[in-house]
Amino acid sequence: MSEYPVWVNGVPESFLPVSDRGLAYGDGLFETVRVAGGKPTLADYHWRRLQRSCHQLGIAVDIERLLEEVDAFLLDNRAGDGVLKVMITRGSGGRGYNPEGCLSSRRILSLHPLPSRSRDPGVHGARVKLCQMRLGRSALAGLKHLNRLEQVLARSEWQGDAYDEGLLCDFAGNLVEGTMSNLFVVTHEGALVTPDLSFHGVAGVCRDFIMEFARHRGMAVKVQSVPRGLDVAEVFLCNSVNGVWPVIEYEGREWEIGPLTVQIRDCVLEEFNA
Amino acid sequence: MSEYPVWVNGVPESFLPVSDRGLAYGDGLFETVRVAGGKPTLADYHWRRLQRSCHQLGIAVDIERLLEEVDAFLLDNRAGDGVLKVMITRGSGGRGYNPEGCLSSRRILSLHPLPSRSRDPGVHGARVKLCQMRLGRSALAGLKHLNRLEQVLARSEWQGDAYDEGLLCDFAGNLVEGTMSNLFVVTHEGALVTPDLSFHGVAGVCRDFIMEFARHRGMAVKVQSVPRGLDVAEVFLCNSVNGVWPVIEYEGREWEIGPLTVQIRDCVLEEFNA
Repeated sequence: MSEYPVWVNGVPESFLPVSDRGLAYGDGLFETVRVAGGKPTLADYHWRRLQRSCHQLGIAVDIERLLEEVDAFLLDNRAGDGVLKVMITRGSGGRGYNPEGCLSSRRILSLHPLPSRSRDPGVHGARVKLCQMRLGRSALAGLKHLNRLEQVLARSEWQGDAYDEGLLCDFAGNLVEGTMSNLFVVTHEGALVTPDLSFHGVAGVCRDFIMEFARHRGMAVKVQSVPRGLDVAEVFLCNSVNGVWPVIEYEGREWEIGPLTVQIRDCVLEEFNA
Repeated sequence: MSEYPVWVNGVPESFLPVSDRGLAYGDGLFETVRVAGGKPTLADYHWRRLQRSCHQLGIAVDIERLLEEVDAFLLDNRAGDGVLKVMITRGSGGRGYNPEGCLSSRRILSLHPLPSRSRDPGVHGARVKLCQMRLGRSALAGLKHLNRLEQVLARSEWQGDAYDEGLLCDFAGNLVEGTMSNLFVVTHEGALVTPDLSFHGVAGVCRDFIMEFARHRGMAVKVQSVPRGLDVAEVFLCNSVNGVWPVIEYEGREWEIGPLTVQIRDCVLEEFNA
């Protein structure tokens, strides 16, 4: 048995067939959802992205059924605060890479504790390194699919407490994102900027939420290149589990936690505690 | 139960834990080995690449033990002619992308029938299309890792019998490989050329075998760009299960099956029947 609750296709089950294409080819996608008081946070964003990704990969998923299952799963396992992982694979079948005839996608739900850290980078700021791993241009950019070896190897570039996150560049040397987070900067002119993810990276739901929040508040959000030198006024990272981490150290540079970062961080925190 | 024999870590078992990182992140690699008369073919090439890939991904594997297991697996299942798939995943554990502490890789062996085709492209020639999917530059180029969504989507671009394989370009528009095969061409000057896989694609073991064979015969093999127009004298595809497929049709162009292609095809066939 698994040490944490797992359901496969609606029933408690911690194993899946070796024939699953998620294993064979990373043929699937996932969402990592923060659960607060038993309820998924940023839920609309997660389910929208999940459906969009399924559509783009040609994986059929019954979203109504999935959401009913998620509710039942959280209820059944008396989820309070934690992390829900939803994986959708194309299931078993097809012939080699060819997925033809592979019509029963597999739904995998698991519930995990929130990451515990002795020092909360959301409060005290994150110390960040530049990873050697480069992200190549991908026709699958933006999707949170199961092909995540680049992130695994980038995250292997450091151990211990010296760094909270690593940043990744594309092959042109521009910053794309963190290993598990998206990047925002505030320029010296006060503009909020996040890298374009049309060709690289994962378009995180917390990034979407922040872009919408900022636009609602009348702030311009620019989607454009961010050179790795980071000559900017504020830097922060975000993801849907940790919220916003202000960056205070990066490759010899240091920042105070800036006012716009604080405003956005607290807005995401409110969303988590709503 | 699975419809074909599967062993996980040396015992008959067709399921594996949902926590396996091969599923979560494609954190592993595989080899697809043609089995003839119960024995793996191109075995040295496969095991060399497997060890190289494990090393590059930082996955520990006991190769002696794996090879003993492969022998026992093939014997136990009275393998005659077929396809052995060997998957090595990083196993379960780590924390998110971070694989630290994840020390027990998982060995998964499965045995499948040889692909059956009403018409053998090795004999009659392969009809090939150009796929829309582009292969991005990857820090993991060359490895046969488990992140294979690009191949799955490329292979989804056609169904039915009109094509035997699809070719993929990089974003610069040069040919890299097929969805499940490597590419060779013979130029009008008689040079054997295969695309450079330093930045894209999978370096197949049959490609390695052919390059060594050609060099032993005193032929020059050039590793260089192959423009997608394919203005060349001969074209063939290779992989370790199907051997060599002479290309006879591609995007409005046609070729006879050429003499060098035949020579190389028959040499690979001999290796399969050795």
